[in-house]
Amino acid sequence: MNVVSLPTLSRVALCGGTHGNELSGIYLVRERLRRREKGAEAEPFALVTVMSNPRAVQQCRRYTETDLNRCFTEATLSTPVSDGTPYEILRARELNALLGPKGSPEAVDLVCDLHNTTANMGLCFISYSDCDWICLHIYRHLQREMATIPVRYVHFDLPIGEAYSLESVGKHGFAMEVGPQSHAVVRSNVYMAMKEGVQLMLDWIRLFNSGSISFEGGPVELYTKVKTIDYPRDSESHHISAAIHPELQDRDFCLLHPGDPVFLTFSGETLRYRGKEPLYPFFVNEGAYYEKGIALSLARRRRLSIPSIQSERR
Amino acid sequence: MNVVSLPTLSRVALCGGTHGNELSGIYLVRERLRRREKGAEAEPFALVTVMSNPRAVQQCRRYTETDLNRCFTEATLSTPVSDGTPYEILRARELNALLGPKGSPEAVDLVCDLHNTTANMGLCFISYSDCDWICLHIYRHLQREMATIPVRYVHFDLPIGEAYSLESVGKHGFAMEVGPQSHAVVRSNVYMAMKEGVQLMLDWIRLFNSGSISFEGGPVELYTKVKTIDYPRDSESHHISAAIHPELQDRDFCLLHPGDPVFLTFSGETLRYRGKEPLYPFFVNEGAYYEKGIALSLARRRRLSIPSIQSERR
Repeated sequence: MNVVSLPTLSRVALCGGTHGNELSGIYLVRERLRRREKGAEAEPFALVTVMSNPRAVQQCRRYTETDLNRCFTEATLSTPVSDGTPYEILRARELNALLGPKGSPEAVDLVCDLHNTTANMGLCFISYSDCDWICLHIYRHLQREMATIPVRYVHFDLPIGEAYSLESVGKHGFAMEVGPQSHAVVRSNVYMAMKEGVQLMLDWIRLFNSGSISFEGGPVELYTKVKTIDYPRDSESHHISAAIHPELQDRDFCLLHPGDPVFLTFSGETLRYRGKEPLYPFFVNEGAYYEKGIALSLARRRRLSIPSIQSERR
Repeated sequence: MNVVSLPTLSRVALCGGTHGNELSGIYLVRERLRRREKGAEAEPFALVTVMSNPRAVQQCRRYTETDLNRCFTEATLSTPVSDGTPYEILRARELNALLGPKGSPEAVDLVCDLHNTTANMGLCFISYSDCDWICLHIYRHLQREMATIPVRYVHFDLPIGEAYSLESVGKHGFAMEVGPQSHAVVRSNVYMAMKEGVQLMLDWIRLFNSGSISFEGGPVELYTKVKTIDYPRDSESHHISAAIHPELQDRDFCLLHPGDPVFLTFSGETLRYRGKEPLYPFFVNEGAYYEKGIALSLARRRRLSIPSIQSERR
């Protein structure tokens, strides 16, 4: 058997509150920080637990001036700072100094950034790579072990310099997106799923770092984002003029065929999918994306084979 | 048959956007205003359609400085204005001048204020009266006619001077609360239910005003609010330390018995209902109430008999 040897993950970052109104990750990070203060169990590797945007968390808003999770491109991280630089850009630099610098040998080995969505996406990995064997093996571990929630992997096909979100600062990294949960609300089932997902990830890392076993490769399924669709809008006011159709709402990752209903206008008209290729919708009716002009995203499903891996003997 | 004669409802107000991130009511009001501009159908009675808090709507936030829907007490409406008076208090005075003054003969005959909740409450009337035959007859009409959503009536037992919300400005009034819907999100099914509810209300008013028939009385069921319960909180940080228990989440208006689970703490402990009387929970995990210290409200269910009514011949 051909086994790929990879460096151990000696420094790992668990982040929450990158968006200040996504409460499961925020309460999970708070709970871990509280237990650590109390001198609860030590981690067998260096785990740094981070509240990414404390100012937005305090206000229970996604962000205060600009979306922190769009600030981690190389361009934004290297723009000179002035008096008018938004808080979130300053905070992105702090986080890049703490967990990166992005793309450097000093960067932490893995960043897991916790998010919630109003969309019915279950537990979803979001990553800029479709060949990061660490992320894909952790994903497969959660998919096998979690009984109560579907686990999927979304791949954003962007060069790492253009990758805009916090997890791109680590050598490996993914967002763990769990929903549906209203922003500024915590649902117990969503919190518990995220907590279980994080625990399974930490267990996997411990086992990987121990070097005692190799992790068998095999087929995995992932979704590569192709495009986004905006809401229909009034040409003058630019207000949206339709909501996601009831037949599409809550059906993230169910194949959308040409001709299927996508929107129902506020006056009652059904608008249909006019693409030529059946694709998989996700982030369907995500609350934070109205301002970004995204009603839903569409992905192509792919099957890959990942190799067996083990950690390098030290 | 004993029939109560009541004045016609010649001036009616339909309000949305009292909370700027409750989108169904906002889009419904926008759609009606748009159709009116286009010269669509005229109403057979004076209907004023109001966007209550345009500044909060523009920012897609519940409010900008203080919760508008807590500003309609006699005390707040009569406090002198200064330079530091919050926008929402000024706006409450404008609305009181437009639709009231509250408690005066000049007030509009009926205010229907459109709201959304993250709680699983279906379509819910909220009113300060349990003997407003107009509101209760409209409620019963919707309850009979709406097939897709449960319709209930919650009674807040407060003197009218202390009644704090917009609908208290009219001679008759109720909030129409529809959920579950995340704040800052519009779900088509929730929008359509609200639209149907408003249409049924307007149809009923038209028929009532025509004086052509009397509306038969009979039994109705309503829920009178008894108390609220806050989240468990950390004694130092005051952060919440538990979420609504999965067995209670989404079970608004399902009887809660002493000993039933209410919360699940973030460390995994179940906390139970310690009241002595079984009561009906509602506004369970409403997102806007975290800051108000309300995890859920509890009500007693009552059955009333309402009289037959007809409009006074003019």
